Amino acid sequence: MAQKELHLKVTLRLYSDDDQRCFGPGIATLLQRVREHHSLRAGAASMEMAYSKAWRIIRTAEEVFGCKLLVSSTGGVHGGGAVLTPEAVRLVDAYEAYTADVTAYAQARFDEAFGFFASDSAPEA
Amino acid sequence: MAQKELHLKVTLRLYSDDDQRCFGPGIATLLQRVREHHSLRAGAASMEMAYSKAWRIIRTAEEVFGCKLLVSSTGGVHGGGAVLTPEAVRLVDAYEAYTADVTAYAQARFDEAFGFFASDSAPEA
Repeated sequence: MAQKELHLKVTLRLYSDDDQRCFGPGIATLLQRVREHHSLRAGAASMEMAYSKAWRIIRTAEEVFGCKLLVSSTGGVHGGGAVLTPEAVRLVDAYEAYTADVTAYAQARFDEAFGFFASDSAPEA
Repeated sequence: MAQKELHLKVTLRLYSDDDQRCFGPGIATLLQRVREHHSLRAGAASMEMAYSKAWRIIRTAEEVFGCKLLVSSTGGVHGGGAVLTPEAVRLVDAYEAYTADVTAYAQARFDEAFGFFASDSAPEA
C-alpha cells in the first residue's frame, strides 16, 4: 500500500488545568535560544518569533509554573541580557528528556501500528 | 513550584520521505466526519474546515499511501456522497489505536518527568 517510507513527529504540549497551553516545542526552543544568546530579544529573533509573542509565552508559563523562568543579566530582560533561572533549565531539560523518551517508545511501536502499509498489496490509485 | 495541575496533549504526525505531512489529527478527524456524514463536503463543514483544504489533504495522503481513501457513493466525491475505502478505515483505526497507545505511555511517564514541579517549594514569582 505505502509507496514511500513514512516517518513520525511526536509533539508533546502541556496545558494548565484551565486549558492554557503552557509548555511545548515553541517555548522549549525559545528557552534554548535565550540560553545561547543570553537575551530574550536575540533568542526570539533567532527563531523568527516576534518579541511580543516570546514575552507572552514566557509570562504565561511563569504564571502556570509559579516561578520565574528568566532573570535579567545586563540591564533588564527587556532589551538587556537574560539568563535562564535554575527552574527554567530544569524544565527544558525535563521536557527534552521526556520528549526523547516518548518519541523512542512511539518509534518502537510505529512499525507494528502502520507496518501493513508497507505490504506488497498493489496500490489502488 | 507548580501552582496548577498540568495535563498533556500528545500529537502524532506522519510525514512522507520527502517531508510532506500526510497524516495526523486533522485528517483523522476529517475521515471520521466523512464516515459519519457520508460526504466530504459535510464532513469538512462539520469541523469548520474549508472544502478545498479537505480535498487537498485527502489527495496528499492518497498520493503518499498509494491508495484511494474515499470513493464516491451518490454521484461523485465532489458534492455527492463519499464513503471511506477499507484502506482509509484501516488507517484511521491504526492511527487512533497508535495514538491511544503512545498517549498511555506518555501519561504513565508524565509524573516522573515533571513531578518535581508539584513539589512544595515556594513560588518565586
